[in-house]
Amino acid sequence: MSETKKTTIVLFSGDYDKAMAAYIIANGAAAYDHEVTIFHTFWGLNALRKDAQTPVKKGFMEKMFGKMMPRGADKMGLSKMNYLGMGPKMIKNVMKKHNAMPLPQLVEMAQEQDVKLIACTMTMDLLGLQKEELLEEIEYAGVAAYIGDAEDGNVNLFI
Amino acid sequence: MSETKKTTIVLFSGDYDKAMAAYIIANGAAAYDHEVTIFHTFWGLNALRKDAQTPVKKGFMEKMFGKMMPRGADKMGLSKMNYLGMGPKMIKNVMKKHNAMPLPQLVEMAQEQDVKLIACTMTMDLLGLQKEELLEEIEYAGVAAYIGDAEDGNVNLFI
Amino acid sequence: MSETKKTTIVLFSGDYDKAMAAYIIANGAAAYDHEVTIFHTFWGLNALRKDAQTPVKKGFMEKMFGKMMPRGADKMGLSKMNYLGMGPKMIKNVMKKHNAMPLPQLVEMAQEQDVKLIACTMTMDLLGLQKEELLEEIEYAGVAAYIGDAEDGNVNLFI
Repeated sequence: MSETKKTTIVLFSGDYDKAMAAYIIANGAAAYDHEVTIFHTFWGLNALRKDAQTPVKKGFMEKMFGKMMPRGADKMGLSKMNYLGMGPKMIKNVMKKHNAMPLPQLVEMAQEQDVKLIACTMTMDLLGLQKEELLEEIEYAGVAAYIGDAEDGNVNLFI
Repeated sequence: MSETKKTTIVLFSGDYDKAMAAYIIANGAAAYDHEVTIFHTFWGLNALRKDAQTPVKKGFMEKMFGKMMPRGADKMGLSKMNYLGMGPKMIKNVMKKHNAMPLPQLVEMAQEQDVKLIACTMTMDLLGLQKEELLEEIEYAGVAAYIGDAEDGNVNLFI
Repeated sequence: MSETKKTTIVLFSGDYDKAMAAYIIANGAAAYDHEVTIFHTFWGLNALRKDAQTPVKKGFMEKMFGKMMPRGADKMGLSKMNYLGMGPKMIKNVMKKHNAMPLPQLVEMAQEQDVKLIACTMTMDLLGLQKEELLEEIEYAGVAAYIGDAEDGNVNLFI
């Protein structure tokens, strides 16, 4: 009996570099035939935002959060040495030079490899994010689904 | 044989949002009958501080740390968009609006669900925190106890 | 049959306190006869840098990163209360007072206990770090090796 290995990642962070690490591990695990889930919560939801502005109705606070948070994977800052945005540019330059995949492509690759991308509905609610603002073909779930997945996981990470 | 599943969380972070995530996962896992432990170390110890000032004798450095660190779960800042404390207020407003539980209640709920709350004695020592300053009915242990717990854990996270 | 337990840690963070936590857990697990691996990626690679300057040829961007990043475990900042470097000094003073091991010695102890220290080759490439700049007797690997290790791990953490 060959049992499928399972990897689950909670992506809490909204930092470009941490999201990269999460997606590199996810894509790596998927390449080794793991069943992989990334559960996006809090600032990690920003990795799933569409880069175009999407017209949705929101309250004042939700609008504020919406404006202050980066719109999509490409706009996120670094956890270290962000220097008002210079850091991410440097990293992206170096990545291009070394033919490393930028984050939006890592997300696409994950979708092609059937990594399950889940948006945490409770924190979507808190931050005022609506389904129309997030990428297509993702799933929506809460903490119960996460526990159910993770309790059978071989590799469970919080990033 | 129905085996009890086990979740362990190292709460290292002193950020309000990360501590929320830790306690939401812990409460979720406890609701699914996991045996759950949160091991509080470094800044994560602040989630266990009483909000009232407790008279204890301390050296100079320990007093400094004591003054600089937030006194209890309710006083912690955000990992992102803290804006000198405006961020946490916004989050708490939004949470109230959406009937989400604030952190101090998540901690209470965890205690009611028999989540084991452990304070790391080594880092208490380093930061000059004394038992009198922390919540009642928590346990005290070191890294050995953590390893013993985590090596049988189904879900082990570092937050 | 006594099976060896396994602990793997991804050290992503370049913060002194987080690296300390990683190495304390790693040394604890090794003391309990776990097979332990620390996989250093992104800013976590700085914990493996030699403190002496090593003459290597680099491009402009790689030189910039090299200059901006801390040279070795002892030079890293704190994740909280860094205060332009005053925080690490305070922590180190308090550690000395309490006979706690500073980070460079925790790294040495890990090597003595046969903790496998791995540098992530992909991020070494990105940040322009070369083997000559890193400690001796470490290993070099990519995400595939990490997945292979972690899928059999009892405790897998991302720090």
